[in-house]
Amino acid sequence: MNTVSTRNPARPARPTGADAAATPAARRAREQAALREKILAAARDLFVRQGYEAVSMRRIAEAIEYTPPAIYTHFRDKSELMRELCRRDFETLAARFLRLRRVHDPVERILRAGLAYIAFAVEHPNHYRLMFMSPPPCEAEPDSECLRGIGDPEQDGYAFLNFSVADAITQGRFRPEFRDAEFVSQVLWAGVHGLASLLITHRDDPLINWHGVEKLSRGMCESLLRGMLTDPRSLDPRTRKAPKPKGAAS
Amino acid sequence: MNTVSTRNPARPARPTGADAAATPAARRAREQAALREKILAAARDLFVRQGYEAVSMRRIAEAIEYTPPAIYTHFRDKSELMRELCRRDFETLAARFLRLRRVHDPVERILRAGLAYIAFAVEHPNHYRLMFMSPPPCEAEPDSECLRGIGDPEQDGYAFLNFSVADAITQGRFRPEFRDAEFVSQVLWAGVHGLASLLITHRDDPLINWHGVEKLSRGMCESLLRGMLTDPRSLDPRTRKAPKPKGAAS
Repeated sequence: MNTVSTRNPARPARPTGADAAATPAARRAREQAALREKILAAARDLFVRQGYEAVSMRRIAEAIEYTPPAIYTHFRDKSELMRELCRRDFETLAARFLRLRRVHDPVERILRAGLAYIAFAVEHPNHYRLMFMSPPPCEAEPDSECLRGIGDPEQDGYAFLNFSVADAITQGRFRPEFRDAEFVSQVLWAGVHGLASLLITHRDDPLINWHGVEKLSRGMCESLLRGMLTDPRSLDPRTRKAPKPKGAAS
Repeated sequence: MNTVSTRNPARPARPTGADAAATPAARRAREQAALREKILAAARDLFVRQGYEAVSMRRIAEAIEYTPPAIYTHFRDKSELMRELCRRDFETLAARFLRLRRVHDPVERILRAGLAYIAFAVEHPNHYRLMFMSPPPCEAEPDSECLRGIGDPEQDGYAFLNFSVADAITQGRFRPEFRDAEFVSQVLWAGVHGLASLLITHRDDPLINWHGVEKLSRGMCESLLRGMLTDPRSLDPRTRKAPKPKGAAS
């Protein structure tokens, strides 16, 4: 599998350094990288709309007006294409979480990870559909490429959440019934997934008068966390800095 | 559109009274009712797996080894079939909620509706996929049949939730930031939807060690509600009967 120099699937990889000179070889390399991105985007779109099983390499080639051999130059088969999509999309999400690793307070980190997760889904609905709203993308052919990074909080968003929850539990921040990190992570993940997926599937439903994404995201993450915390007021940074006297409204 | 005497799609409608006698006409009526159920089940399955757009009446007929004319006797076209599935499935869910209408305490009613919702989804994954995990089923052809019952808590599960939330708000049960019934309903719906849909899509994912459905459902509904309530202890019936003195740990 080729490697790519960028994690942003929308931006084609460009050769760097000496190769960046305006030579025919450099131009061809750029064109090939751009074609690779085009194949990936078309495949993601087709997998989402028609399901992985129903889509052929020929169909992907047709969608971008290329011949099948042109796309086989980039991907050996459909499952290699799917693995590349899977790897990139999970990396993109993990990168968003990684920006939060320096948030010292684990509860604040969990809250911000939840908000970042929903924002990612709303900004990249097709990525999200393929990652979490379809049967697991790697299910058919799990291989070492798919499993690489699983459990590593730097590459796996679920592991990042799980580690942060374990941190918070160690600090005694969760109520007794929420002291199993796996259990808490599953409930939190389900909460943010629910909002993300309803907004993707039903946002244009004329029968529902949706509140704003930001307000709903905070409503979901804050009420779930408040319901789990020993001291719900610890969620509010102002309260944390200057605790209210006991008995004051929280 | 024909009417059916049962809300349970798995059980064929049977003629009642005098018609129930063992006559050839009664046998034919039973066979036709059974065929109608078969068509509906096959259509639901195909719509879920291949998407509404991709499925033809011919394909549905093939799936149950009938000719297309045989299924046109029962449903004028694909959209009539979809409307019938939509009507039945939403009625089945609303019927589960309706059993809870006599639960006096609105917060207890919301909690039990949430648990019932997740249980429905897990028991009927294909119904649930079509209802809430695909683009709105009636989107293409919304008509009076689809809209009938919308907003009526006896026929519309979302309205049932919304009315219960409004009840609880009137009683001063929710914190100040959770006093808009639509907003609270949207967050609660998203929470139960998230758990339901992850369990449907990812339950067999070998990378996730899921806790039990009952435990996760309670974890979701109780933590969301606790996070929204003025007095989280009011969720616990034992506490409600014998309130702890002020200042006691919740």
